[in-house]
Amino acid sequence: MLGRVLNTHQQWLCRRLADLGHVVTRQVAVADTGHAIQEAVREALAHADLVITTGGLGPTSDDITRELIAEMLGKKLVPNADVLAHIENFFAKRNRPRPERTSVETLVPEGALVFLNATGTAPGLAIPVNTGKSKTQWLVMLPGPPRELRPMFDTSVVPLLQREFADEIFVCRTLRTTGIGESRVQEMVAGPLQPLVERGLEIGYCARPGAVDVRLTAGGDTATGLVKEGELITQQVFGPAIFGRDDEEIGQVVVHRLLKLKKTLALAESCTGGLIADRITDVPGASEIFLGGVVSYSHAAKQKFLGVRAESLAEHGAVSEIVAQEMALGARAAFGSDYAISVTGLAGPGGGTPALPVGTVFIALASAKGVEVRKFLNVWDRLTFKEVTTTQALVWLLNAQ
Amino acid sequence: MLGRVLNTHQQWLCRRLADLGHVVTRQVAVADTGHAIQEAVREALAHADLVITTGGLGPTSDDITRELIAEMLGKKLVPNADVLAHIENFFAKRNRPRPERTSVETLVPEGALVFLNATGTAPGLAIPVNTGKSKTQWLVMLPGPPRELRPMFDTSVVPLLQREFADEIFVCRTLRTTGIGESRVQEMVAGPLQPLVERGLEIGYCARPGAVDVRLTAGGDTATGLVKEGELITQQVFGPAIFGRDDEEIGQVVVHRLLKLKKTLALAESCTGGLIADRITDVPGASEIFLGGVVSYSHAAKQKFLGVRAESLAEHGAVSEIVAQEMALGARAAFGSDYAISVTGLAGPGGGTPALPVGTVFIALASAKGVEVRKFLNVWDRLTFKEVTTTQALVWLLNAQ
Repeated sequence: MLGRVLNTHQQWLCRRLADLGHVVTRQVAVADTGHAIQEAVREALAHADLVITTGGLGPTSDDITRELIAEMLGKKLVPNADVLAHIENFFAKRNRPRPERTSVETLVPEGALVFLNATGTAPGLAIPVNTGKSKTQWLVMLPGPPRELRPMFDTSVVPLLQREFADEIFVCRTLRTTGIGESRVQEMVAGPLQPLVERGLEIGYCARPGAVDVRLTAGGDTATGLVKEGELITQQVFGPAIFGRDDEEIGQVVVHRLLKLKKTLALAESCTGGLIADRITDVPGASEIFLGGVVSYSHAAKQKFLGVRAESLAEHGAVSEIVAQEMALGARAAFGSDYAISVTGLAGPGGGTPALPVGTVFIALASAKGVEVRKFLNVWDRLTFKEVTTTQALVWLLNAQ
Repeated sequence: MLGRVLNTHQQWLCRRLADLGHVVTRQVAVADTGHAIQEAVREALAHADLVITTGGLGPTSDDITRELIAEMLGKKLVPNADVLAHIENFFAKRNRPRPERTSVETLVPEGALVFLNATGTAPGLAIPVNTGKSKTQWLVMLPGPPRELRPMFDTSVVPLLQREFADEIFVCRTLRTTGIGESRVQEMVAGPLQPLVERGLEIGYCARPGAVDVRLTAGGDTATGLVKEGELITQQVFGPAIFGRDDEEIGQVVVHRLLKLKKTLALAESCTGGLIADRITDVPGASEIFLGGVVSYSHAAKQKFLGVRAESLAEHGAVSEIVAQEMALGARAAFGSDYAISVTGLAGPGGGTPALPVGTVFIALASAKGVEVRKFLNVWDRLTFKEVTTTQALVWLLNAQ
């Protein structure tokens, strides 16, 4: 509530739940004080079949959610041997003594299901609640760190949902397009989808850095067929401008494509500063197709590692078509890869001129066929510029094959 | 509520309000249906002196917040001539006819203050509400797009706060530590801070990849002094383990330090795959100190660009002390930088052995003084592994100077 941490749980959990066919009606954040937490959970249980809390399960003094909720529901907290063994093993594997404070994490409300934490110490908890509704409600408590919450949701909460809330029918599909503006995306697809909208399909659009998502949703008995029909029409409209579905990221799609084709990649990054390499290496198995990259943030680095000619830099400047070309060819030759991508541009905020404004970027793609350069003007803040440029480069590579 | 858009309003507004000394007690997101919106606003007015809504003020059919709130408060909506003039001017400046449906944006609840929209059409609205509390409450409605909301908050809401809620004193300071676990951080600092806690200081802890934040807050007349005293004690306890304050990121702190010292940096990244370079190049001005990096994701790249010896790779493997050392020395020589950092490790999920488990990483720092290598065991998922290792490398560089 101090605004020092961005709440990404809302988006992540809402998306996962929507993809699984569940409708989220409300998200609440409160300060970690007893009164506020209990009040928020009480209000949520009055409205929803499933309430998920995040955070407040750790070992420090402000981690009070477990105690507050047990108290509110009138459940005793009892030490759990499985959790203790798990936490002792966690620290043993790291050759560190178990801090005494972690003992509080072994306490579990009576009657709760325990989700052992594959990436941390505090377990998740799922408590069946009977408030007189016809159906048992569930209160699920998950740890706050995303690296703990996310795998736990997938491995432990999803099976619980499938068992307890299987009677939901709500279908959602997102198709991720790139290279087309948000208004134009809507203009292109709204007409063809109109007959399905009349039968209950809902369409949403979301502009993201370098991409526009088209979201198709429907509820009721005909939902699956309706969304499937909508997906086919959307694919026909956009063709190769669709790079992925649902939460697929472009890096992942590119790596999987290259793995399938058994083709290798090298990078020569200037203005993206390593972000393309970072996106590629986020994907397990990337080392089989990614030979490496050079972040050539200086003239000397461009010359030394990529063989960019001093005359090209002197005559055309680092942000130029010819330098992009030489960088890509140089990277492909030096790493001996099938493909090489280079980017050189002005991320800003400083350094622009009328002839070469901030946001100018040249991307080159070298392959066995030769080298091609494209120019873009990405007028954004520095971080969004890097994101947009990275998406452009990877989408080009994806469609080049 | 489908999780397709990240909610950044919460963080932005909470931070601004906290910096201005106001305590935010709750943040709620609901679907844009009439019942859910009215219920959320009614509950908020029951608890808070100031309620801010965002979004739903535009011209399309799903923009219903203005009407719903006027209805709920029993206020008539009346056309406002200033708003109409503003919107007509907005379109005239762009040589576009004013769309008829923008007329709804000129409707203002009786008695509301109007905030003209400097970057869009829909005005913000501030309605004084008397629910029988001793003090007038305010309901402030802001447009949803961040580029409209943010300037409007600064130019219109801040003066309202200063006029109506001047009697707040609330102070917050975050100190960012690294290299120490969350439990241990609390064990170290809770005792020394206890006398201040008894005088009203509140302490919070937040674990992030590679860092633990200690947050000190206080309200009332003595808040500034109390938080300042707490900050000094925390600094004494953790010394160089504190790398930044409030929202400072490690990349930013490192770049500013190197700029001040006029020292240059080069990188040789294997398992972090470009993430260290990405963090460095996120900072405007990085090009003055960052000469570049090699993402050496293959043996050949390590040998060719960094001069790692084939024997070292054959005898010790890519993830070894000697290869880390040769990578750092090679990068420093090749780029001609003052400092060079190298990282080589096993990000996983595959590829570990009992002798070299997933999570093993060697970081080397080369400088005029020579080269030093440190070994870490970062047992996390792949993405967190990259984050934690990046923080370790940058914190070491920061403290090495």
